[in-house]
Amino acid sequence: MAETVGGLGEFGLIAAVVARLPQGEDVLLGPGDDAAVVRVPDGRVVATTDLLVEGRHFRRDWSSGYDMGRKAAAQNLADIAAMGARSVALLVGLAAPGSLPVDDALDLAHGLRDEAALVSASVVGGDVVASDALVVAVTALGVLDGRPPVTRGGARPGDVVAVCGRLGWSAAGLALLVAEADQPAEAVAAHRRPEPPYAAGPAAAAAGAHALCDVSDGLLQDLGHVARASGVGMELDLDAFIPDQPVAVAAQRLGVDPLRWMLTGGEDHALAACFPPAQQLPGGWRVVGRVVEGGVVRAGGYERLAGGWEHFR
Amino acid sequence: MAETVGGLGEFGLIAAVVARLPQGEDVLLGPGDDAAVVRVPDGRVVATTDLLVEGRHFRRDWSSGYDMGRKAAAQNLADIAAMGARSVALLVGLAAPGSLPVDDALDLAHGLRDEAALVSASVVGGDVVASDALVVAVTALGVLDGRPPVTRGGARPGDVVAVCGRLGWSAAGLALLVAEADQPAEAVAAHRRPEPPYAAGPAAAAAGAHALCDVSDGLLQDLGHVARASGVGMELDLDAFIPDQPVAVAAQRLGVDPLRWMLTGGEDHALAACFPPAQQLPGGWRVVGRVVEGGVVRAGGYERLAGGWEHFR
Repeated sequence: MAETVGGLGEFGLIAAVVARLPQGEDVLLGPGDDAAVVRVPDGRVVATTDLLVEGRHFRRDWSSGYDMGRKAAAQNLADIAAMGARSVALLVGLAAPGSLPVDDALDLAHGLRDEAALVSASVVGGDVVASDALVVAVTALGVLDGRPPVTRGGARPGDVVAVCGRLGWSAAGLALLVAEADQPAEAVAAHRRPEPPYAAGPAAAAAGAHALCDVSDGLLQDLGHVARASGVGMELDLDAFIPDQPVAVAAQRLGVDPLRWMLTGGEDHALAACFPPAQQLPGGWRVVGRVVEGGVVRAGGYERLAGGWEHFR
Repeated sequence: MAETVGGLGEFGLIAAVVARLPQGEDVLLGPGDDAAVVRVPDGRVVATTDLLVEGRHFRRDWSSGYDMGRKAAAQNLADIAAMGARSVALLVGLAAPGSLPVDDALDLAHGLRDEAALVSASVVGGDVVASDALVVAVTALGVLDGRPPVTRGGARPGDVVAVCGRLGWSAAGLALLVAEADQPAEAVAAHRRPEPPYAAGPAAAAAGAHALCDVSDGLLQDLGHVARASGVGMELDLDAFIPDQPVAVAAQRLGVDPLRWMLTGGEDHALAACFPPAQQLPGGWRVVGRVVEGGVVRAGGYERLAGGWEHFR
């Protein structure tokens, strides 16, 4: 029988996990003490926290422990990138049933470590507790390298609205899983393991982006947050939304309009930004609309689909 | 009927919570964006995360939402103090059933805010998700004000072992609650809402403490961690453990040896430290033993009670 986290115990599990976590040069004190100590040279730390709950954000029959780790890390690392910052550290809280196989817990740690490694961040600390539900709580810490943070509140009429990264892939993958389909495999994989364009956040900040956010609730909803915070409206150009091949194929297979996934699907953690109109955009960024007066985000009739993903509803 | 978090929705709940969170001067960007930005002037951030799970760390029939908030914050703020650091910010993840009354969620935020205010820290960000189980994930961030962190690994033979703060209060309170007793009320209150001696951490660091930890798993177990990390042993003087009045009264009432609670009870978040023998101790610290060679923590026979609180077992 597979060893469970209940059998191994809290301290045994922590010891096994910590052994898998290499520490980068910004880590002054890693796991194992009451707290970690991380270097943040410009005297400011960027911090964000997110929870993933089994049955809401993942299903164990659809996602491996490793995928859960990748996804939990990605969600938080994308929030750091969405401030124009660079992640340096993760802290992880795991609430898990005692029946969880130790291998699943280690795979989760392995996934967190590997996603963090994409941006040279380290898993510096955490907590493990017993719980009926499986909950992964991740906190990411980042640095701004001397730049100001890019908030949601700086968009101005006349700016261009641009996105970088995937739109609609994770939503397509989820729809395929619900339909018990496994093709296109790239879309299913994208739901299990998003690929946020981390470097595009600091690049947008360096290029003078006025506003920046990540797409976690759906593009229309997240741009709505930017519009509200900035006191502006936006007009999106639907012709700029050309579905990527896996999204187009999945949409055709399931008889769905792919624009719906692209405009309202979250979890790909693309980045969206508003740039000054004369600004040449950094690599990977594409214009999808412009900032206007007024408080409404218009997308040629699709705005009625807004709402994206709100928990509890 | 009371409004529930399911009825209010994620964004409504966040908006209601954020309105209750004043931001201190170290907060450069507070809640409401993808991440917060906090000032850490000496270029190092101290970070720790802990989870509290309903049914394991609290019971809603024993603790109010406000008490849960106080306790969740206290647990993490104590970990920062246990590095000799000063807390500046908290991030909070709340996984809650949709049926949770909004007032309970707001009371929890209120409790977090008030505990943080004791050390002039601010709640700078968080996440709210739906979940069958109620889980509170807190991350605390702190600053070292130019000092090195005080780890568990620096104790040396000849040092004195000292503690600051309450021992056995929370364990006594829990035993009273289990026995459906409500007196002494101070002990019950201490279980619901610990009172860690936050300022004693930086004070111990400034006084040259060699090692420092908080008492979260029970004094014998936590000192065992220090002994292991430092490669030393300890001999505790049982005569130094005089139960405080509420602990003594509760012990007498329940027919329990109060030393057991003092040596193995966690959750009061007292601080324990090893100081150089010639060092005059800062206010509130009291000597309870000394550091010796060898890897064993001895307490006159009580070490067989070690074990404290390990989750999953």
